[in-house]
Formats: sequence, structure tokens, C-alpha cells
Amino acid sequence: MSDEQIRQEPLLWTGDHYNEGIGRDDIFDKLREECGVFGVFNLPEASNLSYYGLHALQHRGEESAGICTVDTKNGNKFAYHRGMGLVKEVFNKDNLDILAGDRSIGHVRYSTAGESKLANAQPLIFRYRDGDLAVATNGNIVNAPEIRKELEMSGSIFQTSSDTEVIAHLIARSSKDFETAAKEALQRIVGGFAFLIMTNDKLLVASDPHGLRPLVMGRIGDGYVFSSESCAFETIGAVYERDVQPGELLILDADGMRETRYAEVERRATCAMEYIYFARPDSDINGINIHMARKRMGRQLASESFVDADIVTGVPDSSISAAIGYAEQTGIPYELGLIKNKYTGRTFIQPSQELREKGVKMKLSAVRKVVEGKRVVMIDDSIVRGTTSLRIVNLLREAGATEVHVRITSPPFKNPCYYGIDTPDRKELIASYRTVEEIRKQINADSLSFLSDQGFVDSVGGNDGAYNRGMCLACFDNDYPTPVNEESDKSCSC
Amino acid sequence: MSDEQIRQEPLLWTGDHYNEGIGRDDIFDKLREECGVFGVFNLPEASNLSYYGLHALQHRGEESAGICTVDTKNGNKFAYHRGMGLVKEVFNKDNLDILAGDRSIGHVRYSTAGESKLANAQPLIFRYRDGDLAVATNGNIVNAPEIRKELEMSGSIFQTSSDTEVIAHLIARSSKDFETAAKEALQRIVGGFAFLIMTNDKLLVASDPHGLRPLVMGRIGDGYVFSSESCAFETIGAVYERDVQPGELLILDADGMRETRYAEVERRATCAMEYIYFARPDSDINGINIHMARKRMGRQLASESFVDADIVTGVPDSSISAAIGYAEQTGIPYELGLIKNKYTGRTFIQPSQELREKGVKMKLSAVRKVVEGKRVVMIDDSIVRGTTSLRIVNLLREAGATEVHVRITSPPFKNPCYYGIDTPDRKELIASYRTVEEIRKQINADSLSFLSDQGFVDSVGGNDGAYNRGMCLACFDNDYPTPVNEESDKSCSC
Amino acid sequence: MSDEQIRQEPLLWTGDHYNEGIGRDDIFDKLREECGVFGVFNLPEASNLSYYGLHALQHRGEESAGICTVDTKNGNKFAYHRGMGLVKEVFNKDNLDILAGDRSIGHVRYSTAGESKLANAQPLIFRYRDGDLAVATNGNIVNAPEIRKELEMSGSIFQTSSDTEVIAHLIARSSKDFETAAKEALQRIVGGFAFLIMTNDKLLVASDPHGLRPLVMGRIGDGYVFSSESCAFETIGAVYERDVQPGELLILDADGMRETRYAEVERRATCAMEYIYFARPDSDINGINIHMARKRMGRQLASESFVDADIVTGVPDSSISAAIGYAEQTGIPYELGLIKNKYTGRTFIQPSQELREKGVKMKLSAVRKVVEGKRVVMIDDSIVRGTTSLRIVNLLREAGATEVHVRITSPPFKNPCYYGIDTPDRKELIASYRTVEEIRKQINADSLSFLSDQGFVDSVGGNDGAYNRGMCLACFDNDYPTPVNEESDKSCSC
Amino acid sequence: MSDEQIRQEPLLWTGDHYNEGIGRDDIFDKLREECGVFGVFNLPEASNLSYYGLHALQHRGEESAGICTVDTKNGNKFAYHRGMGLVKEVFNKDNLDILAGDRSIGHVRYSTAGESKLANAQPLIFRYRDGDLAVATNGNIVNAPEIRKELEMSGSIFQTSSDTEVIAHLIARSSKDFETAAKEALQRIVGGFAFLIMTNDKLLVASDPHGLRPLVMGRIGDGYVFSSESCAFETIGAVYERDVQPGELLILDADGMRETRYAEVERRATCAMEYIYFARPDSDINGINIHMARKRMGRQLASESFVDADIVTGVPDSSISAAIGYAEQTGIPYELGLIKNKYTGRTFIQPSQELREKGVKMKLSAVRKVVEGKRVVMIDDSIVRGTTSLRIVNLLREAGATEVHVRITSPPFKNPCYYGIDTPDRKELIASYRTVEEIRKQINADSLSFLSDQGFVDSVGGNDGAYNRGMCLACFDNDYPTPVNEESDKSCSC
Repeated sequence: MSDEQIRQEPLLWTGDHYNEGIGRDDIFDKLREECGVFGVFNLPEASNLSYYGLHALQHRGEESAGICTVDTKNGNKFAYHRGMGLVKEVFNKDNLDILAGDRSIGHVRYSTAGESKLANAQPLIFRYRDGDLAVATNGNIVNAPEIRKELEMSGSIFQTSSDTEVIAHLIARSSKDFETAAKEALQRIVGGFAFLIMTNDKLLVASDPHGLRPLVMGRIGDGYVFSSESCAFETIGAVYERDVQPGELLILDADGMRETRYAEVERRATCAMEYIYFARPDSDINGINIHMARKRMGRQLASESFVDADIVTGVPDSSISAAIGYAEQTGIPYELGLIKNKYTGRTFIQPSQELREKGVKMKLSAVRKVVEGKRVVMIDDSIVRGTTSLRIVNLLREAGATEVHVRITSPPFKNPCYYGIDTPDRKELIASYRTVEEIRKQINADSLSFLSDQGFVDSVGGNDGAYNRGMCLACFDNDYPTPVNEESDKSCSC
Repeated sequence: MSDEQIRQEPLLWTGDHYNEGIGRDDIFDKLREECGVFGVFNLPEASNLSYYGLHALQHRGEESAGICTVDTKNGNKFAYHRGMGLVKEVFNKDNLDILAGDRSIGHVRYSTAGESKLANAQPLIFRYRDGDLAVATNGNIVNAPEIRKELEMSGSIFQTSSDTEVIAHLIARSSKDFETAAKEALQRIVGGFAFLIMTNDKLLVASDPHGLRPLVMGRIGDGYVFSSESCAFETIGAVYERDVQPGELLILDADGMRETRYAEVERRATCAMEYIYFARPDSDINGINIHMARKRMGRQLASESFVDADIVTGVPDSSISAAIGYAEQTGIPYELGLIKNKYTGRTFIQPSQELREKGVKMKLSAVRKVVEGKRVVMIDDSIVRGTTSLRIVNLLREAGATEVHVRITSPPFKNPCYYGIDTPDRKELIASYRTVEEIRKQINADSLSFLSDQGFVDSVGGNDGAYNRGMCLACFDNDYPTPVNEESDKSCSC
Repeated sequence: MSDEQIRQEPLLWTGDHYNEGIGRDDIFDKLREECGVFGVFNLPEASNLSYYGLHALQHRGEESAGICTVDTKNGNKFAYHRGMGLVKEVFNKDNLDILAGDRSIGHVRYSTAGESKLANAQPLIFRYRDGDLAVATNGNIVNAPEIRKELEMSGSIFQTSSDTEVIAHLIARSSKDFETAAKEALQRIVGGFAFLIMTNDKLLVASDPHGLRPLVMGRIGDGYVFSSESCAFETIGAVYERDVQPGELLILDADGMRETRYAEVERRATCAMEYIYFARPDSDINGINIHMARKRMGRQLASESFVDADIVTGVPDSSISAAIGYAEQTGIPYELGLIKNKYTGRTFIQPSQELREKGVKMKLSAVRKVVEGKRVVMIDDSIVRGTTSLRIVNLLREAGATEVHVRITSPPFKNPCYYGIDTPDRKELIASYRTVEEIRKQINADSLSFLSDQGFVDSVGGNDGAYNRGMCLACFDNDYPTPVNEESDKSCSC
Repeated sequence: MSDEQIRQEPLLWTGDHYNEGIGRDDIFDKLREECGVFGVFNLPEASNLSYYGLHALQHRGEESAGICTVDTKNGNKFAYHRGMGLVKEVFNKDNLDILAGDRSIGHVRYSTAGESKLANAQPLIFRYRDGDLAVATNGNIVNAPEIRKELEMSGSIFQTSSDTEVIAHLIARSSKDFETAAKEALQRIVGGFAFLIMTNDKLLVASDPHGLRPLVMGRIGDGYVFSSESCAFETIGAVYERDVQPGELLILDADGMRETRYAEVERRATCAMEYIYFARPDSDINGINIHMARKRMGRQLASESFVDADIVTGVPDSSISAAIGYAEQTGIPYELGLIKNKYTGRTFIQPSQELREKGVKMKLSAVRKVVEGKRVVMIDDSIVRGTTSLRIVNLLREAGATEVHVRITSPPFKNPCYYGIDTPDRKELIASYRTVEEIRKQINADSLSFLSDQGFVDSVGGNDGAYNRGMCLACFDNDYPTPVNEESDKSCSC
């Protein structure tokens, strides 16, 4: 894949911004969300709905955005627009107007490889035997490199480095009818993914056989909307209908929607990190509200590892709910001990090394008046490499905290993800090679506790009878729902 | 002529954005912050420090930004750059590099008249007898129109419609030495303001005689920084020193800083709305932390007007602290019942009337899973016209709230501000012509309570012996610290 | 193909500009040049040389530009950048720096279908079995639609609507070695084209079997450069070596250049319109300088159709040389009777219909002082639909010309081009359905003459023994060098 | 305050471009034009007319453009927009629509100091006692520094470094009525200038007492247009009426136009370089067409200094007319021996020193096929420092010219201009310290001749009885029409 990193992409290249953007989070070693998809079927102004829907999914991908529409009132014509930047930057009234139609698929993404300049903005658009084909995906195809190799050997040429492209080639190569071809293509691929596939005639919606990546269905009158997260439904005035099921393939065309399957559910395995970190607190996954799940994680954490302190604070934004839960459970007041500048974004200039050493902060500050002279419980969602945690603990200490007790709302993150989350190699994951006490020392905390596996599972809740309540906990317990090996491609297909 | 060659002209006008931006908040009738100023003295990379400092003050003004520098290492040359947009949009590495120097004044602003296209971006830059002159201000000069008229009659010409310009003319017109001229000019003007004035040789820092607008001083080694709010100090690694006092005039030049006065303190009157709504929660004003003051307001509100309910929620972002205080006091759990999309900004396309009617939300949504079937206490900071409150109550009801009890963390807002806050005319302020019960009906709430004047004053605290603890409460109690009348110019000078 | 016209491309979309640009020439019905290609082999700073080379070819395509490089000093890595706009708009120091390498291919193009928004900017970039593949072309593949259909039926998917893409697929599909595959692919396609094909290892340069489109080779020391026109060589300091021959295939790699053929020359047929209109006057094609050929056309025209007049004027820019030739031959003084505003470009706002009726001109004006009261000979290169000629004759009459005699430096343009020039359908070509006298009336001229076929051929000169001296005259005499039919695809592949 | 709300701020700063643009002509030491002005009175869509008018004057200033309008249908409101870049870059449909009104003044300018980043874009806009005031000027005020000093000493503050600003201050400072104030202000200033001054009520048009800078009046129906050059009239469909006379002051308001004088004509002195180099060939100055005057210069030069040669060529664009005149007179054929790339502009990247040494040309190339083996007469308009001439002679020699005979269509340029043309100091003007023979050697020519003073004067023609036919020849004969001294400010006021 390294050959491609130097490829320069041209798509709506917002030159300086793009360059400055690289590494904007590099001093914080957070996991990075992989992508968000949004689909519309049988609704006027589909592109406008997608604009607001994708805007609600913006936290799942800030690097690029794209919308592709089909206009059934006008010969089922395709139109699309993609660009680098936020939804509000990529789209304007002019280009949304051009995107006429009543069906659409849209996408927001991160460039998973931070050092890559390649803009594989989605939806990917192809022209094949039967007309136009667009694909938007969230997740990763574990066996994409093998399939790609095989396709290339038989003469296929690729326009992107995105693994998503293999699904289009598999469909185009098949001599069977489109639905069969799509079904067989889905059966060939292994991984965790949510797919929206659109042709001039049909919209296909599919979730991987374990339901690793979230995908929900909503209704507006006679029309359907599909979204990575339900938070988009409230934004656009849609009514939540149900989660798309593992192995399900929905086919929507002039005859309406048919609910089919391309795979049996083997073992349901929704990504645990969606509950812990990625999803917006106002989203529900499998019927469970994220904010409330996080509050329960905070309460559970308080039960498992109480510590006497003066204040509880959460690392914004993802850990606020859990911190409030912790505070409610313990009676220790929740305070705003850390604050994040909401204006920091892609184009923000990072402080020079010199200024950073002098104390210039980019994005997160401790609130001196709040933490000075206080014993602080600091709630965070996870520890990846440990550098961010150390940094935040030190921010609190520099602002006068007398003790800093770190409480993590998930079990130790030990194993890389192969299903669409951008994680470092195993050897960089601090929990894979350090004990909790060693980590505590390294992040300079007075005490450190992680949530237990069982405590986490219970906090999320849900009525799945399995021990893990239908979640993938591979990053904690190394039990991957599909075959993977250390050499498998981890980079997100989207 | 060579002195001027480094002057940077305006202005990075991001045209389309600006137009689209108008009215981005029009469905929410919030008060609008007036401006923020930031000054640096005797510190290398002054423009970079200003960049991070202004970034921390961004909430005080999102429409334009500007920085002017003096380079004492290079003939005390002036350089400046201003532009429309956020700090991160206006400045880039290239223009910051050009802004060489160890002194600077910077500014962020709102265009107070939403319909105005006029870009009075500050700092304003002038060339007068003694060289270059730059002015950045936060606040309003009540008697600017009269002074301006008088200056124009004697032949002055103005480059902007900004009232701030009068201070420069008053100084230029004086036949006295610069410091005397500045002092006399400050004595001529009436209002609420924080001024940073810079010439090739000197930096002047002044606060109005009542200290209406906040202004704090910090230190980095031998250098000084000045800021509308202390939150910027934590960001840039500065140590808070003290608040600039009412009527104070600080003069900084090659001889260091001299602390002088141009007016006696008559009555201290810090703007109450800074505590309630404008200032960032991690700022301290007069030594009082904003987050903690807001939590106390929430607690006080709970004491004054308890209501039995299932959850407490705050209108983001300003009312979160108070909502947590209310929850802590009452034991009713704080929940995330309302969520704001943090990506919505100036360039965001508002939904068409049609889409809005269909339920498309621009920025704020209720979280169905959290509020459905619940009796909700909704904490907000103020009610201006009442339209926003109605809208939010309805969002909660549509999401299934069975009862909505509105609690406001300030007394009723009845009187317009003449000191730099963009308020509607008195006749549009709902509290000026409606009883609390009438307002309750109009905003469709099950119950409504405002914080009492005394409760508010006590919540803020502080050790000022006055009944109002040194705050201006004119918007609540009509007791203005300076002469004003209904015809006085309300539009902010900055 | 119409399905695709609504497809929206995203490449460096300079939104407003692009829209305004459409139809910028719509009131002038000139033929539109199709594209220009530029290649560099074994020279440091290949991308910079391409920048200046493409700049010299800018007249061949103003809509988009692109450069792809291979860096043999760094693992033969690919890098590329493409964008909408002029060369100077698409490239800057930053992106040229990123385009490291000693080999490159570059491209400038028109969007041939004026109404199309599709940005098939070249070089096209693919990833296939053996690595990266880039293609830049000038011309048209007459049988591309059939080949494309065939490829799609066997499962190929296309990323663009450009016919150029078929060459990449033909190569990728072949099981033979790359050179054989490329040779066989070239043998499959029919049309007029100049190809630059680059892989990580090799650069291929090919001209169609009739040499319809110009392509020249030059040297700088040990390196090679290839260009659509020789004018680029003077610009970059290269020495002209020779024209690439019809049916020739040059292969350049680590072993240097091998000169091979993939087709025998059947009949040489260089595009006549290159001499008449497209090529820059300082270029030489087949050893013949364009300016001098045009002067000879003017002289020949004077011999064939002298008319007594006061001044000779040429329609800028293409007809100036011929007008001077005409003036020299007749002794009638050449004057600047028409002037073109050189600043008019893509982003220029066309006058409204109302302003146009009031006399506002966009681009071309008559010079009243020069033409008033004069009998004018107006030299132009061709008449396509006739609307432009009518317009210019009227400009001269409105400026006071008493007589306007139109002299055209080419035979009547009667037949559409299938080899890369954007021509209307036959039924829109005025000369295909009108006599010379009818055209004269329609364009409101006092007299009208075209250059004879033989006169044109003699003017160009050259030592090819054929009656047409090795030119394609199909647009005049309907004698196409390859099989074509009225349904063949005329739209340029590049 | 509402009057001002429509004012548009500056604007559309094409930052990077501006920086790259600096020095784009630095290898060619041509004189630089100073500015162009365009005014409209009593015509609907005044801003659109200005757009096309300024576009026609673009050659007089490529760095910035601005338009200010007054709408007499809407309370005589002011609106303006200015920006860096070409007219087509600064203005778009949106901002032209905002510039409503039936009166306007517009401006295009060079930044005369190439190293200056200061954007004194005009029209300058002021607000003074009686309302709004806008000023656009072409030329230079010799005594501006003294007046400015005096104004600053009495308390005026300046917003720009432009000398033009003094006229506004002089008017604002006067206690007399506006017309008297303007007249007295014009009487105070010394120099060469064309002024357009607009208030809410009036439009003033003035030329300096010697008519140094050109300014013409035209009509469209009941409306008036004013322009630096008449070429703009043909573009917008206006009829030329007359040249504005030296010392004339036209006052246009609701009562129509009054023709007054503020100064007697002492000695008419139109800038000779307008005829020779600056004006567009399709313009007429004092009734003399520029193209025809230049042809006569070429013919006269042929009479004065014939040389036997094979071809005549002109340095594009300004010397083409003269070269054709020379060719007609001598019978030596005119050929395209030098060609300029018309796409080179502000944003063009100059070749690195290394590439330049290798022969990469930026803008101008010799046409090898045309000049090879030929004795060439090269016609140019002037020699400033001599470096450009040397460069062009060498281009021709490198392309194979056997002899290069340089013929200059003006007398030797020996003395700096104080009236708005950007000239180097006297000591850098080659003709001020070298004999013709020395210059010949320095520019490597086989022969060199300048046009004689009398020959030049006769070529221009005109019916003024004076020896110089009413031209300023100071740059040739050191006879300045106003007092100046070596220390006078040469930098253009506009």
C-alpha cells in the first residue's frame, strides 16, 4: 500500500488547509472513527436530506464528504459531488441544486492513514455494463487485498486505493443478474461493514454477517432513510424504524423494498467502541441510547473502583456522560475541570514546538479555578498509546490538582481492530504490553482503573443472551468474530 | 513611505460564506456577544500568541478577526492583517510570519447589525502625525455619534462606520503629547469598553470608569498579555495577574509598564450577562470562575423554584453548568436531553422553510430516548424574545417529554444594553411587556421560573459590598451606570 | 453518452468560475481545440519543465490541466495533480514540489462538450496488476464506444466517460507483457491521436497510423521531451529533434529509447486545421512554420480573390499572419481594425442580453478611427456556423466601414471531424448546405471568398508528393483517412 | 448608520497570488502604467458598465480593481467593492448586483512599488461631514507629501499611504461649500492627474492644468461616461464626445453637467509615453488614434534610420503597429519573430534561476524558423535600463538571427517621470549616462537608432501649434511642465 501514499489526489483540493490539517490530532492519540453513510429512498430533495443527515454524522468523518443522487423523475440519471472538507464546506446551494433526485447515498470519511494524501472520497462512482454504479461504505473488508490482487491479475484496473472498490468489480465481473451478482459479491468479502450500493435502478443496503458496524433504517412517509447512526433521524425529522440486521440485504427499487438475506447470522458482534467512544450520545444502537449507556458505564466504574476525591471531571466530549454518571453514583460533584475549544478544526495552525513547550495549548485546557487544590477523578473512555492520558493528567497537575485519579470507561484496549477503526499496531497499544500499574506510572496518575469486561457489558445492557450481549469485544479480549491474522489489512476500506 | 510597506490589507473576504452566514442563528433569538480583544507586550512571536489567544476568545466574535503587530527589533514597524471569518480562517502561517514583532493587539468581532455587510474589522489602523496608530475595542461608546458629528464638522473624515474610530480622531486632533491626548480622549467618551491602543512606541490599555466590560492582565516572564477573558491565559501558558480596574489606564513602552488612572471609579458595574451567558465557563471575572458561578445559579434556582421531575437538562452550551448544579441540588438526574451539532457554522446552509416544517433541524435536537415519557426540567440562561424558548420546549415535547418545566438562570431581561451587547429594542424584549405567566403560556411550558435578582447576585458571589456586588444589572433592573436614553446608540462600537 | 452529462465531477471544482465559464465563447462559433500533451523523460525537475511546456500549449486547452510524474530516484513512485483551470491556476510551487521526479506526462484540455460538467481531467491514473498507469492523449478514438461496450460486457468498470480509458483497460486485460499489450491495444483502436502512456518503469509515446494529430520530439542534453507542438521547445530551451511519425511507438525506459512501430503508414494525413487555426504561429509541424504558412495562405488568397480596398485587417489572433500576407501581396495597408481584449477569460461575466443589445462587447471590438469610412478586407480562418462572421462584419459596419470583404484562409468547412476537433453536426455547418453567395448574404459581407483546396495545399507547402501534401482535408473534401460514419463518436477522447 | 450598511469591504484578497505575482515582470525592465479610471453618470446598471469599462482599461493596472456606486433611486446610497486582482477576478455577479445605482466611479491600478504589499485599492472611500466621499485617480500629486504633512500636523488621520487621500482631506477640512472646497483643493495640488470624485449628490471630473494624463468623455443617451482611454467606449457602446481639457472641472448632479474650470491652461502637455507605449492601440487621445500614430512612428523611423535586412519584427504587444509601419515603408517583410505567451499572468510561477539558465523562458520567445539565418530589424518602443533589450536581442541571436538591428520608436528616455509613471531613478536610466553607441554595445545589437524628437512629434501629429504639439516630452528633453526636483515624490498617487 505504501506505493500509493505518494499519489496525489486532486479532488477539491483545499490546498493549504489539507496540508495543515495533517496531524491536527497528532498530540492526542485517540482512535479515529472510520466513516459514516447515509441513504435516501423515495423522498424529494434527497440531496438536501443527505446534507443534513451527513451533517449529523460529521463526527464520523471530517476529511471528505460526498453525495450521489438518482433522479427517477428524469430518466434515473446519476449526479454526484464529492470534496475534501466538512459537509458544510463541500456542499453549497448551487451544487445541492444540481444533485437533483429522490434517491441518494452519501458519505463522510476520515483518511485513515494520516500520512496519506490520497483522497478516496466516497461515494465511489463507476460506469459498468448496466450503467452507473455508486458505492458508499463504512468499515473494512479484511480480505480485500487478496480479492484485489485476483481482480488485477485478470485485468481489472482500479481508480482508487480504497478496498471498497473491490465490491464494484466483483459485481461488474459477474455474468449473473445484478441482485445475484451483488449477493455473491457480499458473500465473497469478509469483514465489518455497512454498504450502500446504488445503480440507476436500485438501492442496496447491506450489513456484514456479524453486524459489526451500525446501520439503522428510518421512515419519512413513504420514503426510507438509512444512516450509520440514529442521531441523523431526529435532525431530519425521520422516524426510527429498526436496525439493519447482520447479514441482511435490503433491495429498494420501483417495486418498493424487499428484505432479503445474503448470509446467516453466525454471531452478532456490534462494535463495543461505538458505545464507548464513537457514536454520538443522542444515537441509539440496537435500541440502546449511547448517552445513557455511558452514564451507566460511569456508575459501574464508580462501583468497581471508587476513590475519595473532591471533584469528578470528564475528558470532553466523549466522557462527559460517564463522568456525570460517576458523579451521581458517588456524590462527588461533577465539575468542568477540562475544556475543549470547539473552534479548533482542520485548518487550525498547531503551535510550534517552542510555543508548545512554553505552554501554548491547541485544543484542551484545564480550568485552574476549578481544579486548583483539588483531588480530581478524571474520566476518560480509553487509553490507546498512553501519550494523551499523560498529557491530560499533566494539564490537571499544572493547573493545581493535588491528586489525579484516572478512571477509564472501558476495559484495557489490547488488540487492533480489523473492522474499520483506525488503530495502531498491537505493539503500540500500551495495554498490550504494560500492566495497569505500569500504565498508571507512565501516565503519571495517582490511581488508575479500567472498567471490567463484565461491568462494561452489563452497563451497555441489551437483551442479547450472549455473554457479550452481542458485542464485538475483540479489542479487549482478542476474540475476533471473523478470521484475521496479524498481517490482515487494518486500514479502513472507506 | 517604507514603514508602510509591510502593512497588510484587509482581508481575506470569504465572500459567499459571509452571505450565507447571515441569519445563521436567526431562528434562535439569543443575545450576541460583542467582541474580544487580546494584547501582547514584550514577547517574541507576538502574532502567534495572539492567534492562540484570539482563538480562545473566538466565542466572543465569529465574524472577523485581526492582528496588528509592532516590531521593536525592526524600527517599531507596524504590520497588520484582518479578515472576515474565524481566527483559523483569517490567519495562516504565511500571514502570521509577516506579522513580525513583540507587541500586538488583536480582535475578534460580531457584526452587531446582522443585516449589515459592513466589515469594520478591527484593529482599526490609522496614520497620523506621529506615525501609526491601531485601536481594538470591546464595548460601546454611548456618546460616539455626538463626538463623531463634531469631528466631522471640523473636517475629519472617517474610514469606517465604527464608533471606535472617534478615539483615534480625538487623539490625533489634540495638540498635547500622546499620553495626555489619550487620557483626555478617554475622558470625553461615555460607555462601557475595554480599549487596546497601540502606536509605534506605546501600548495603552484602558477600561471604562465602571469596568463594564471584562479585561484581564497576565504575565509570561517579562512580558504582559491582556485579554477580554482569562480563559486565553491557560491556552497560551500565561499566568493571571489581575483584572484591569475601572478607570485604569496602563501605559507600556520601552520603559516598561506604568499604572495610571484617567478616571475615578464611581461605581463598579461588571456586566452581569458575562457571568450568565457570554464568558467561557473556564474564565474567571473579578476572581470568580464562570462555571462555578453558573453551577451556583443552578443550585439557587433549584432552591427558589423546585419542581418534581424525572430529568434535568440544559440548553447547550451555556446552560450545562447550571443544569448540573440544579441536578446536584435536587437529586434529579442530569441527562443529555438536548444536543447541539458542533459543526454548524457560518457556512452552513439553513434548511428551506419546507424542510423545516417537515422537521429538519439546523443545530439543536432533542434526544428522544432520553426525554420520551419524562417530566423534564429545562435550564436556560435567558429569554429574549421568547421564540427560541418556544422552539426548544416544542422540540422536547415532540420528542415525547410529558412535562417541560423551564428554569431561567437570570432575572427577566427587560431593558436593552447600551454597553456593547447586541439587544433588540425594549419593545421586543418579551419580559418588558409580559408577566411570567404570560411568558410561560407563550413558550408552551408547564411551569416557568426566573432566578431572583438577589438570588442571582448571591450566586455570583464576590466580595464587593454593594447590593449588586459590583455588577451592572441594568438589563434586569433598569439602573444604568451611565446616562443613557432610549435614543442612545446601542450598536456596539467594535 | 448523454446519461453522463449530468454527472458532476469534483476535481478542484472552482465552482462559480466553472459555471460562469460555460459558453464564454458561445457567441463566437469557433472550432475548439481538443487537447495538448507534454512528456518529459530523464530530466530533473520534470514537473517544472512540464509546467512551462504545458503553459506553452495552453491555447490547446484551457479547461483543465494535469501532470503525473515518476521519480526513478525514489522507487519509481507516481505522483500526480490535476485540476480545473489554466496551468497557472492549477499548479503552484507547493504542488509542483510534491510532483518529484525525472519523468512526467502532462495534459491540457477543453471540455469538448460545452454543456458537459464532467471533468475528465487528464492524465488519467489507474492502478493495475503491474503497478501504476497514467495516460494522456490528444485526439479521438473513433471506435472507442464499441471497445468500451465490449470491455464493460466482460466486467470492466470505468471511472470516466473519457474514451481514453479504453487504452488502459485493453492493456490491463492483456495477458501478454506490457509492451506487447500496449502495441496490440494501439492496433485495436482507430482514429487520430497522440498518446503518452507512463508506468512505473516505462514511458510510451505513440502517434496514430495517419499522424493526424501533431506530436514532436525534442532533446535537452540526455533527456527527451515530447510535445503536441514545437512552440513549447523554445520556451523550455529544448532542441527540436523530429516529428513523431505516423504509426510509430517509442519506448523509453532505463535502457533509453527504442524506436518501434505498431502500424505501417498507410497514408499520411496531418490535420489541416492545425495549420489554419489551432497551432501557435511559432510552432512548426512537419518542418513547416505555422506563421509563415499562414502568411502564404494570405498571399495566395490575395492572388485568388483580390479586391480593391483601403485597408486589410485580420480577426485576432489566428488570422493576423494571413492578413499581413494579404496586405503584403496586395499593397493595401494592414491595419488594426479589430482588437481582442486579452484579459477576457473563463471567469469573465458575459454582458446581459440587454447590455449586449446596447452595444456592450465582451471580447472583440472594431477600432472606429481605423475603419471609419474605409473599404475593409477582413481576413478570417474559417466559417463554421456563420454567426461569428456575421457578428464581426456588423462590428466593422457599426464602426463605420463602408464595405466589408471577407476572405477566408481555408476552403469551406463542410464535414465534421472525427479526430479530436470539436465540430458541430454536419447540418449545422453552414458551408454544407449553403452556396458561397448564400453565405455571403447571411454574414452581410460585400464579397466573400474562400481559399481553394489546391491553393491551401500549396500554401502550406511541404515536400510530400501526395496531392494533399500529407494532410487530412476531410473537413473540406469529405475524404476521411479512416472508416467513419455519420454515427461515429465525434467527441474528443481527451 | 443605515446608509452605510450596503458598503462592501475590500475584499476578495487572493492572497497567495499576490505574493507570487510580485516581480512577474522583473526580468523585463519596462515602464509600468500607473492606473485607469472610469466614471458613469445617469445610466442604469452603472456598476455593470463600469465592469466592462474597467475591463477595457485593464492594461493600465492589473493589481487591483474597485467600483463605487451611488443609487439616486434609493436615497443616493453608496456601495463599493474593491479587491486585488484583475477586474474579472474581483467582480462577480453577486457583488455587481449589490453595487446598485446609476452613477459610479471605478479604478484599476498597479502597485507602483513592486516590493510593496500595501493594497491602496481605489476608489478610496471616506465618510465626512456631508456624507460619503469616493475618489479615484490616475496620476501623481508632486506636492502630496508636503500637504499630507501639514494635514497630519493639524490632526488629520490617514487610512492609506496613497497621496490621493490628501484631496479628500483638503475638501473635508474646508469650511466652504463642496464645490468651492473641491476647486480650492485642486488648486492646491501640483502634478499630473485625472480625478473622479463622487459624493452622495455629485460627480466631479477633473484633469490637471496641463492635461498630462488622458481623460475622455462619452455619451450613452442622456448619460455620461468618463474614461482614461476611449477604447472603453467602443466596448460599452458609448459615443466619444471630447477629451476633458487641462484645468477643467466638470460637475454633474441632479441638474445635469456644468462645465467649469479651476485653472487656466498654462501649457498643454499630454504624456508622450501614452502614445508610444501605454495606451491601447484602439484608443484615441486628443483625437489621434494610437495604432495609427505608432505606424507613423515606424514609418518615420524607417525614413530616419533605414537598414537593409531580411525581416522586420516587433516586440509584442506595444511595438507591433510600429513594426508594420516600418515594414510597409521599407518593403522588408514583417514577420512574427518574437511571440509572447498571452496566458502568463500574475499567478504564473517564474522559472528558477537554474531553469532560466537552462533556457526556460517565462513569457517571450523568439521564433527560430522565422529568424534563423535572417538579418532582423527589431522594433521596440523604448529602452529603460537596457536589460530587457539585451535579453531580447540575445533571444533572437540564440534563435539564429545573423544580425539584429534595434530601432526604437521614441527618443532616448533620459529623465524620470513625476506624473504617475513608475520610472527608475535617473541614474538607472541607461540613456542618461550612455551614448547611443555605448547602449548599442551594451544591448549587443548590430545597430541601434532612436526616433528623433522632431520625428516623434511629427509622427504623433495633431494640430497643436507648439513645437511639441502639446505633449510632455520631459522624459526625453528634461523640460517638465511643473516645478519638480530630483527629490520630488515620483511614486504614483493612485
